[in-house]
This record gives sequence, structure tokens and C-alpha cells, in this order.
Amino acid sequence: MGEFDLIEHYFKRPERHAARVALGMGDDCALLQPAPGTQLAISCDMLVEGRHFVSTLDPFKLGHKALAVNLSDLAAVGAQPLAFTLALALPRADDAWLAPFSQGLLALADAHGCELIGGDTTQGPLNICITVFGEVPMLNGRSQALLRSGAQAGDDLYVSGNLGDARLALEVFRGSVSVPEAVWVAARARLETPTPRVALGLALRGIASAAIDVSDGLLGDLGHILRQSGVGATVEADLATTLVAANEYYTEATGQFNVNIVPEQWRRWALSGGDDYELLFTAPVARRAAVAAAAQSSQTAVSRIGQMDAERGLRLVNAQGQLLPNRYASFDHFA
Amino acid sequence: MGEFDLIEHYFKRPERHAARVALGMGDDCALLQPAPGTQLAISCDMLVEGRHFVSTLDPFKLGHKALAVNLSDLAAVGAQPLAFTLALALPRADDAWLAPFSQGLLALADAHGCELIGGDTTQGPLNICITVFGEVPMLNGRSQALLRSGAQAGDDLYVSGNLGDARLALEVFRGSVSVPEAVWVAARARLETPTPRVALGLALRGIASAAIDVSDGLLGDLGHILRQSGVGATVEADLATTLVAANEYYTEATGQFNVNIVPEQWRRWALSGGDDYELLFTAPVARRAAVAAAAQSSQTAVSRIGQMDAERGLRLVNAQGQLLPNRYASFDHFA
Repeated sequence: MGEFDLIEHYFKRPERHAARVALGMGDDCALLQPAPGTQLAISCDMLVEGRHFVSTLDPFKLGHKALAVNLSDLAAVGAQPLAFTLALALPRADDAWLAPFSQGLLALADAHGCELIGGDTTQGPLNICITVFGEVPMLNGRSQALLRSGAQAGDDLYVSGNLGDARLALEVFRGSVSVPEAVWVAARARLETPTPRVALGLALRGIASAAIDVSDGLLGDLGHILRQSGVGATVEADLATTLVAANEYYTEATGQFNVNIVPEQWRRWALSGGDDYELLFTAPVARRAAVAAAAQSSQTAVSRIGQMDAERGLRLVNAQGQLLPNRYASFDHFA
Repeated sequence: MGEFDLIEHYFKRPERHAARVALGMGDDCALLQPAPGTQLAISCDMLVEGRHFVSTLDPFKLGHKALAVNLSDLAAVGAQPLAFTLALALPRADDAWLAPFSQGLLALADAHGCELIGGDTTQGPLNICITVFGEVPMLNGRSQALLRSGAQAGDDLYVSGNLGDARLALEVFRGSVSVPEAVWVAARARLETPTPRVALGLALRGIASAAIDVSDGLLGDLGHILRQSGVGATVEADLATTLVAANEYYTEATGQFNVNIVPEQWRRWALSGGDDYELLFTAPVARRAAVAAAAQSSQTAVSRIGQMDAERGLRLVNAQGQLLPNRYASFDHFA
């Protein structure tokens, strides 16, 4: 199967462009028309050098995750997903891989009304590069985007969903811990098919003062908000630690199954595990009811885990407010 | 050096956003504002699996080419470059590679006023994924974009610049031919640092009826115009063949240096060589003066090499109008 057949076969959708997509796949550029009077032309290419590689991850899940991590970025600015481009390097055009990959990818895309509008395919070590586009409205000339730079001293600090499960699954894959089947299944789903918090991001427009998605670990990503907002934060470590969803299984099953996981490990995974794709955000204390309403309307759990301080720096405390040492580095690809 | 240091060090520019770039690097999404009343949020991620690989191409030239092939796509729709994202997989953070790569990339970006607004870096086999954004104006509610679908029977067929030199250089690299130094230098520059025909694409708005950039070979890319416009074409093969720039050296130097290149090879490279990044476009016969003016204003050579026909299919003819066999397949990554 050739390059163009490959695109036609796996990635071409029926013509059903949204009003803002003036031109989709099949030309040198895609054209978006976010507003009358102009268009945005979009293109994506890939250059690859490398050698053969075969993925061990279920291609359906890989397709889901590749788009999910991008949608998570849209969620973090409160953008409505609109379209995306896909650049794909593959060792060979293999139906047994491409069919489930494209199905996983497009199922999530359809669920968010996010249209594939172009891209590139080439031969090379497996590599997936997606660029996604979303819309953010203006209100009275001001963007409604949730930025990292808007946090104020005194704001509450929140995180959505659960933390640390993806890291737990990774450690099981690595063989460093073993857990009961139910914990493994739950944690693995969080690692392989994360849920982008798009609905929550949209619901938080006009409420949250700052937001980021947690991809490199809670504390590391919080650091970006602190730097860009020029504030500090106090995080109640135990509150975050209880957000490891697998914790529920641990405490509710028998209370005593012999897993080789100490509380410090739970805490480490929650605070710096990475691959969580939850929203970490701040909001004024006066907006607590609005945050609760946003969580409810988006059907997304939200937990308050700390507060922003005028004093710079990041402080970890226990339930009694006592300072804890911070030994939790975030993930860095080149560290 | 860590991931964030790497971005800061090599790819962070002084804050000088164009009016339409509401937010550049440093948040989850970049925000473009092509028109009042809305913004476009943009993000780019990369997933990589693979093994170590070291490029043999000069990183400065690789940086240039990675953006050039994307700008060539903008040129082919007549778009004004605006911004781009870069996703980069690297075996390791190596200054000796990153410094010249970023310089080559950003020099071309600056030359076109095209701002790097975001992206992603990760560890993996060398892979560069760029997504570029350009603007196309509307006129009386109609897009001014040059599409592949607008060619009409009777239109002239044109190509910019030279053809086949990149393929000649590739064959020299492969050792299948050898050429004099002057030819090698000229051809290699065309392969490694192609010039995107952005100015010509802009000048052809309102004049050309269809356009595409030549990346997979002249005839193969012409096939896209034929299919999408529902027309045929007749190409004068000898006219295209003379567009191999290295030809000049061959005929003008001594007329007899012993290169192992027969006329059929020159022709093959011109018609199906690939990696040319020239503009192939059509325009009504009545617009010949306007095409010439566009070529002059953009300082880009343009050659008329054939015409579009109502009869479907692609016909190659010699200077006497006699049909030639078409044995020139285009490049396909997965064929």
C-alpha cells in the first residue's frame, strides 16, 4: 500500500467539515476560518531518520493516547477542540497496526468533534506527531484562555481526577512493584488511555485564574504556574497522595494484601509521577461554589489540595500544616 | 541540559509577537488571533519510540530544510507565513547539533517573518516535525488560496525554477553517478537547502488557477492537480528536461566532460526526481502577462511547460508534439 492509499484508506473521513474548516485533507495546506474575513492555512511535514522499531503498546490505545495528550493541552487553556494534523513515521505500512491505531485515534477525535485536517506520513522509526487546534472566545476584547500566568496569592489550588496511577502502572511494567489484578487494570487504563479534561477546561473559563495540564508530575507542572504567575504555593501532600486511585483498591479490598508499596511511594507517584493528564488550576476563594458547579457540570471530580502564597517557592505540608521535605523532581526527557 | 533549558537556550526568541500572535511559547497552547473576535489555540506533541541515530547532514542545513519544505506548502496555496510549531525527537541534547540546527531553522524563519510559537522535545531517534501556519485573505467572501482543484482545460502549465538537481545530488551521494565539482556543489545546495517559493505563491494569488509544490516529482504531483481538477494535461518533456540546472554546467563547461549521464537520465530526474520544492501551477492563457509580472516581482524564474486538456490523462510529448512513453513514477514512501 502506498502513502496516498494509506491516507485514503485509514484517515480519510466523509466530507463533513465544520463551518470553520474551509478546506480539510487533500491539498498542500488545510484552511481554517476562525472568523469572517481571513483564513488560516495549516500544514504539517515530518523529516525522519532512523531504524526499524515495533511498538509493544496496543495500537488502538496508542491512537487514543496520541490525541488525548494533545486534547489535554487544549483543555488546559479552556479551548474547544476544532481540528488536528497528524504526522506519522512508520517502519512499514502494516494493516494490523494501522487499522486499530486509526480507530483509536478517530474514536476519540469524533467524541470531541475534532477533525483530522491534514498531515504527513513517512517511513521511519515509529513516531506520531499531532498538532491540534482549538478555539477560545474573546469577551469584551479579552481572551478567555486559561493561562499559567494568572494565579494570585490567596487563590485556591485544585487538581482534577486522580494522580499517580499512570506511574504505578509504569512501575508494574518495569517489574519494580506488583499489585493485585484490579489495581493493575485500573492503573494501566490510566496510563494507556488517559481522559483529556476538555469539558472541565471549558467549564472553568471565567472561573479559574490559572491552569496547566499535569504531564510531567504535579509539583513540576505547578512550578510552571508559580514562575509564570510570580507567586508561591503551599500543597497539602496527604491530600494529593490520597488521589492515587489505586489507593482505593488497596484500602477497600482487604486492607492487608501484600503489595510492596509503602506510603512514601504512593506519595511520590501522586506528586511527581507524570503522565496524569489532569488539570491543575487555581481560582479565587470567592469562586469555590463556581468551581464546584464547573466540576459537576463537566462530571469531573475536582479536589482542593492547597493555596497560592505571596511568598515565592513551593511548600509541602502535612495535614497538621507541618513542613515536609520536597524530594519530588518532575520528569525531564533529557535530564 | 534539561528539556526546558534546551527550549529556552536554543529556541526562545525575544518577545516580538506579531499582532496576530496573541501568545507564543511557554504555555500549554499558543494562541493565534487571525481576526478580531476569536482566537485559535494551537498545540503540538510528539510520541516517539526507537533507537539512537546520528544524522550525517549538516545540522544547519537540516534546520533550514525542515522549515523550507513546510514553507513550500504555504507557498503552494499562496499563504503568507505567520508562525510554526516544532516537535523534535533527539537521541540526546547535543550542543554541537542543536546550535547549528536552531540557527539554520531560525535564519529561514526570520527571513520569512515566521515565528516559532511552540512545540515539544523528546528523546528518541532523530525526528523533526514542524507545523506551520499562514494567512490567506478573503476577497468578497471568497478565499484567495491557490488550490489543486482549480485548473481548467486550456490553461497553461508552469513550473518555477529548476527541476531534478536534488535527485542528481542524491544519485551522486549514492555513488551511481559522478559529476564535476561545480555541478555537485550546485546540485547539492538544491537538495540540502531548497528555497521555498513563498514570494511567487503570494504573487500568483488571483492569477494562478491551481498550484501544488513539487516534492514527489513533477509528474506525480501534477497528477494531484489532474485528479482534483478533473482535467488532463500535455507536458513538453524536453522543456522540463532543460530545467535541470546542472544541465547548464554540462553544456556550457566543455560540452564533453565524461559524466556518466545520458539524456534519458536528465529527463527522468526532471520529471520524477522529487525534492524539488518548486511551484507547479496553471493559469489561463489570457493571464500570461500577469504570470510574467508575478515571476518578475517575486524574482523567481517561471517556465511554461505544457497545457491542461479536457481529455483526461497525462501526455508527454517532444518538441515536435510526438507522444513519448511515460515511465516516470513519483516517489512514494511506502511503495
